[in-house]
Amino acid sequence: MPRYAMRIEYDGRPFAGWQRQDGPDSVQQRLEEALRALDPTVPSIAAAGRTDAGVHATGQVAHADLSKDWSAFRLSEAVNWHLKPMPIAVTACAPVDDDWHARFSALERRYTFRIIARRAPLTLDAGQAWRVIGPLNVDAMREGAKHLIGLHDFTTFRASICQAKSPVKTLDEITIEEAPYPGGQDIRLHIRARSFLHNQVRSIAGTLERVGAGSWPPDRVAEALAARNRAACGPVSPPDGLVLTGVGYEADPFVS
Amino acid sequence: MPRYAMRIEYDGRPFAGWQRQDGPDSVQQRLEEALRALDPTVPSIAAAGRTDAGVHATGQVAHADLSKDWSAFRLSEAVNWHLKPMPIAVTACAPVDDDWHARFSALERRYTFRIIARRAPLTLDAGQAWRVIGPLNVDAMREGAKHLIGLHDFTTFRASICQAKSPVKTLDEITIEEAPYPGGQDIRLHIRARSFLHNQVRSIAGTLERVGAGSWPPDRVAEALAARNRAACGPVSPPDGLVLTGVGYEADPFVS
Repeated sequence: MPRYAMRIEYDGRPFAGWQRQDGPDSVQQRLEEALRALDPTVPSIAAAGRTDAGVHATGQVAHADLSKDWSAFRLSEAVNWHLKPMPIAVTACAPVDDDWHARFSALERRYTFRIIARRAPLTLDAGQAWRVIGPLNVDAMREGAKHLIGLHDFTTFRASICQAKSPVKTLDEITIEEAPYPGGQDIRLHIRARSFLHNQVRSIAGTLERVGAGSWPPDRVAEALAARNRAACGPVSPPDGLVLTGVGYEADPFVS
Repeated sequence: MPRYAMRIEYDGRPFAGWQRQDGPDSVQQRLEEALRALDPTVPSIAAAGRTDAGVHATGQVAHADLSKDWSAFRLSEAVNWHLKPMPIAVTACAPVDDDWHARFSALERRYTFRIIARRAPLTLDAGQAWRVIGPLNVDAMREGAKHLIGLHDFTTFRASICQAKSPVKTLDEITIEEAPYPGGQDIRLHIRARSFLHNQVRSIAGTLERVGAGSWPPDRVAEALAARNRAACGPVSPPDGLVLTGVGYEADPFVS
């Protein structure tokens, strides 16, 4: 069966997350339905990141096995046609080898978490950023973030329901950008790792917000990490600001 | 009566535009209702830009006369409280002189029109950009835009229902930025003038899109302008990509 990699974008708000589950709508279910409208034999699809309810993606990657050959262009156009008017779209598509796997071949996941710090509620960016009252000290957030880079036991920063066998992960990057925003600050945390624990990015974002607000000195992040205790984490941020922006593979399947 | 200037942000989608009208919801009406919840005597408010249905703002400016003194901070907090959960927010507020007028004191209006050129429908940016299939040649768009800079009779680029006495306006700037976007291009036209005719920005955006798509040579923009004939205009763009980003005054009322 020919296998196709797809880069997928979605607004996470109307969905119960990526993963198919009983009852509520998932992105996976909607995408599988669109694929099966073209080819009823398509088996369940796999994705690189199992984003939670309300979490967005601009660079999710999944693969699907079809029963016949398609041009990548026609396949993405047909899937997008069946996805309308839902806020899910295939933005790139390419044939891949049978042993290429969207999840297991992935070498890196990239997330951006956006915080808007201002008094006024959000309008145009509602649901696409976490609004905190602020102001936030971004230099202090950067100092706190440094403690998390590298190989650590991230027990403090994972959900109690996380099913990963080990809490030990390597965090490769946390870069924090700040831009002006009407009435406040627009802050983006760019976070990169081979893989993440459940709620790890939102736990980190919520903790660094406390540092930015001045409630936590930056060194308390190191103490929280060393505690290896979920209770030592800052408040977990809402999903609104989180976007899966990209997945890295040995070779980019979408560049021919 | 103490007068207050307010910088206002809104998602234009749920509204019939800025201006109060019989029947459909307007931003002006909702803002006046919020002000009158604080002070029932507040007269009708004036704004710098009368944005159309579906047009957004991050930097609209209006002024209101209240019957008593407020701290600017408390006034904006109270108005925002009454505006919730509508996507309208006051992001800055300041007392101004009695003869300061949001509309008549304005020296400049700044708009951004965002075009996303790609095959796939929009998800996260739906309603906040005009999606065209593209690709667009941005250098050709810049060449076409040059013809519009300066003092001209913009009859071609104004709505037939435009009520301005004269079609002669000076366009000070059209800067076109391009950034990568998943599956395509993210193009922003930054347009600046003392004042605009009705539908002028959307007429310009729709015409320059035709140039970018290769349907119009850049010089046809000069011919269209010289024709002083509405029929010579390219198709008017939808409102989705248009944002009133700022208004200029002799002194910025929001900088103390």
